[in-house]
Amino acid sequence: MLVNAMMLPLVVLSVLLAVTPTIAVWPVPRQYSTGTTPLRLSPSFSIKLSGIDHAPRDLVDAVARTSSYLRKDKLQALVPDRGASSAKVIRGAKSLSSLTVSLTTKGKVRSISEEAIEDVESRVEGYTLTIPADGSAASLRANSTLGLFRGLTTFGQLWYDWDGTTYTLEAPFDIVDSPAYPYRGLMLDTARNYFPVADIKRTLDAMSWVKINTLHWHVVDSQSFPLVVPGFTELSKNGAYSASQVYTPGDVKEIVQYAAARGIDVMAEIDTPGHTSIIAKSHPEHIACFEASPWTQFANEPPAGQLRLASEATTNFTTSLLKAAASMFPSTLFSTGGDELNANCYDKDAATQADLASQKKTLEQALDTFTQVTHSGLREVGKRAVVWEEMVIEHDVTLANDTIALVWISSEHVAAVAQKGHKLIHAASDFFYLDCGGGGWVGQNVLGNSWCDPFKTWQKSYSFNPTANLTEEQSKLVLGGQHLLWTEQSGPANLDPVVWPRAASSAELFWSGPGGDVGEALPRLHDLSFRFVQRGVNAIPLQPTWCALHPGMCDLHA
Amino acid sequence: MLVNAMMLPLVVLSVLLAVTPTIAVWPVPRQYSTGTTPLRLSPSFSIKLSGIDHAPRDLVDAVARTSSYLRKDKLQALVPDRGASSAKVIRGAKSLSSLTVSLTTKGKVRSISEEAIEDVESRVEGYTLTIPADGSAASLRANSTLGLFRGLTTFGQLWYDWDGTTYTLEAPFDIVDSPAYPYRGLMLDTARNYFPVADIKRTLDAMSWVKINTLHWHVVDSQSFPLVVPGFTELSKNGAYSASQVYTPGDVKEIVQYAAARGIDVMAEIDTPGHTSIIAKSHPEHIACFEASPWTQFANEPPAGQLRLASEATTNFTTSLLKAAASMFPSTLFSTGGDELNANCYDKDAATQADLASQKKTLEQALDTFTQVTHSGLREVGKRAVVWEEMVIEHDVTLANDTIALVWISSEHVAAVAQKGHKLIHAASDFFYLDCGGGGWVGQNVLGNSWCDPFKTWQKSYSFNPTANLTEEQSKLVLGGQHLLWTEQSGPANLDPVVWPRAASSAELFWSGPGGDVGEALPRLHDLSFRFVQRGVNAIPLQPTWCALHPGMCDLHA
Repeated sequence: MLVNAMMLPLVVLSVLLAVTPTIAVWPVPRQYSTGTTPLRLSPSFSIKLSGIDHAPRDLVDAVARTSSYLRKDKLQALVPDRGASSAKVIRGAKSLSSLTVSLTTKGKVRSISEEAIEDVESRVEGYTLTIPADGSAASLRANSTLGLFRGLTTFGQLWYDWDGTTYTLEAPFDIVDSPAYPYRGLMLDTARNYFPVADIKRTLDAMSWVKINTLHWHVVDSQSFPLVVPGFTELSKNGAYSASQVYTPGDVKEIVQYAAARGIDVMAEIDTPGHTSIIAKSHPEHIACFEASPWTQFANEPPAGQLRLASEATTNFTTSLLKAAASMFPSTLFSTGGDELNANCYDKDAATQADLASQKKTLEQALDTFTQVTHSGLREVGKRAVVWEEMVIEHDVTLANDTIALVWISSEHVAAVAQKGHKLIHAASDFFYLDCGGGGWVGQNVLGNSWCDPFKTWQKSYSFNPTANLTEEQSKLVLGGQHLLWTEQSGPANLDPVVWPRAASSAELFWSGPGGDVGEALPRLHDLSFRFVQRGVNAIPLQPTWCALHPGMCDLHA
Repeated sequence: MLVNAMMLPLVVLSVLLAVTPTIAVWPVPRQYSTGTTPLRLSPSFSIKLSGIDHAPRDLVDAVARTSSYLRKDKLQALVPDRGASSAKVIRGAKSLSSLTVSLTTKGKVRSISEEAIEDVESRVEGYTLTIPADGSAASLRANSTLGLFRGLTTFGQLWYDWDGTTYTLEAPFDIVDSPAYPYRGLMLDTARNYFPVADIKRTLDAMSWVKINTLHWHVVDSQSFPLVVPGFTELSKNGAYSASQVYTPGDVKEIVQYAAARGIDVMAEIDTPGHTSIIAKSHPEHIACFEASPWTQFANEPPAGQLRLASEATTNFTTSLLKAAASMFPSTLFSTGGDELNANCYDKDAATQADLASQKKTLEQALDTFTQVTHSGLREVGKRAVVWEEMVIEHDVTLANDTIALVWISSEHVAAVAQKGHKLIHAASDFFYLDCGGGGWVGQNVLGNSWCDPFKTWQKSYSFNPTANLTEEQSKLVLGGQHLLWTEQSGPANLDPVVWPRAASSAELFWSGPGGDVGEALPRLHDLSFRFVQRGVNAIPLQPTWCALHPGMCDLHA
């Protein structure tokens, strides 16, 4: 059966899927065929790098990790008897002894880590994976080590365990795969609540299993400043929740390298000029309306406080800070934020009003200057700026053509952002916010609920159309998209269950392309969740186990 | 300062609380005073049982656990500097060397475990705790070992850590405490998804920390039958998710004893006649509309299937099963369920129609017979029946006067249930369902959301009035209440974060009494959440850490 999953009309697809088991890979490969022959991994199964001179260390490590997952996943098939009735077939199956991994290009071999941090628009992530049914060697080929890594990830998800035997019932496999969109991210806020490095690394592993290629790290905010920035260490010293709740340059390096070795670029964000209250703990001169009350008049969340954007000193301070922070990260991308600017804060700030008067500028003109100066500082250190949508559609500021916009307030704003001609990343609260539906967190608000209710189910984000309301030309501006976790009510205690497996739905949407059917996807997503748990990531059950073991029988019209 | 927390008008209370730190105990004691003198625990601090001959093993163990928490909690105060500015005061504080624990009654000393499983209406849980400010011995007294256990729990929550010193800034303490309601529960469904014994034991520990005294264990349902019932082992053999996902009689004994030693009674439930599909795997003759399609016409959830209540053989089978299952649990209470009976299932079941015709009974009359027979079986083994509200207000069945009703569909049904004269437990979905707001879980339902949206915040459940719309006489029927976790989308991966700290809000409501102010409660609830995390229970953060460290500053009107 040859399935180009996202190209077939849904009706045809569902008929095909009703008669054969689907491939247990998430995101689903863009083109694949499977068979019905059982095949098991030989006890001496090995992954061999072929013809790769001086194989990069991260590729060798990725091979070792894949081998380890094959040995340790011990995931039983999600059928009522978990595989027992196939025991005889499995025992009698041919054995696969090896997977041969090779590059299809000549020349200097680059590491996964080098390729992962290339500009988002020029990464090469495709691969071809062939697994014959007769036990002869399987083959993984790609034009890049990053592509080989994606293929190894796929290979690691094809197998189940029964009684110590690692098997599939669906050989042969022929897979030709590459992503529909170049940007597939996950945003994590480490400022409202702090996450130890170990939590971030575990999250990076999980992200890599679903081929997410960017960690959008919203590292600081008004509530805390955990990033230790060389030259600006007073910010974290006075602004972190505690001396141990920080990310040192060594921590950042560890995280960035860990991510890159797993095909993930780290796009950091220092949100400006809003969301900066905590800077006042060490630089009160740069912050307007610091902890002003009632906070509802000065900020969207407590505590209030914004950079004095009309001040030349503050603009220079911010530029230096952004350059120093951005230089800690090898990514070509860096986000300067720009969301939720509160005009009343500046109206009531005497220093800002004096600056505006002396410069004969409006607030918008001052914001334009602030943005141009800070962004050109970033360009000096080789970064391409990323901003939240307000900077494109709410404010009248000059942005470089290559500036990327994150659409967050509503998916209905996508067309307006595209209209401005900037590349964009889907991050809309109505589809991709992982924190929605968790109840209100503001104090003394008995009946308060989540501002972006209801909870965004995986089905909802999976149903998103990345080019809705866009012209064909505008559609080319879409780089991809991501789920986002704002952490007002999340911390290490609930990181995994809030994120997984939901964030996998955007990972597939932007890898495999839109138009997937939630009914076809659900059994694969169960598979993924169970596999995550086997690997130590606390993905939640999406349904009663009974439903996971009886595909389709818990569907609405079943 | 003497505070009888729930009796004071809110205005007076909030003024008092604005000027002094509140007691960091959850649930808040019903009567207490605190001071402003620092006091620390001596490195040689010990808890001494005084005049308790042959002290029960579980009391000795509880003392040891309390001592262990005092040593290991290492909870820093939730203030911006986490206690640093109090370091000098703490170092200079007087030391408390001992807590003397004694019973105020004479006669045979009963164990906590014996007292915990007494009839819900006759348990004695009150205690008096006095901690002088001058370092002289503290004193805990009660009429029961169960009361002493509650007092030890309180003692364990009064202390913070700074740099290895365990201290309070609020001595002396005078606490006189006892619960407002005798039933304070938590319901856990182990049928939709299975929870290992270790998860249940960890949950029991957490429950005991907030003085919850009943685990309502919804142990089996249509999806799986994990309970190994002596004489009916075929049910779990064919109905558990796997051979290892069961609760053996040994597991049950372990759980029951673990619970009782922590002051918790285990009220088990075998839901009948609905929610029993899985029984057909071993006894197809007893189940109507087994896995009938479309399930929406035969059950509220897949898979469909209900006990053939009009069949004498099925009635006898059910009675024997209930007696055997109930005999595994020492509690005086046992729930036979009775919710969500589907009439269409019986209308379409030829066997049931034939039984009804031959007996010349309506379905309601057959249900009455079924209920009377099964309940009298339970009485034979010493159990008092508990049922869901439909059995009281939707059906015309004969129930013993002492039958207890669980009100779940809506808090608006409480008055109707009380009207029938039965004792009742608050368990309403609009206040106490922990699973609401998590999105729809049924397959092929892209925009489906939680049927009981929105998410029930702790503030919402905390604001519940247990006697709303009840006469004074009817109010006496209220035994208490509980949070409930139905586990369609929960498993070991997210048990703690879904339950905690939210379930603590009903624990306080039904111990301390209603009328508490969420603004006063929030800092204590932060304290509790942070302490839970220190003790290994993954309670979620309710707010950004900044808010936890700045009480009141994230309130709506701050």
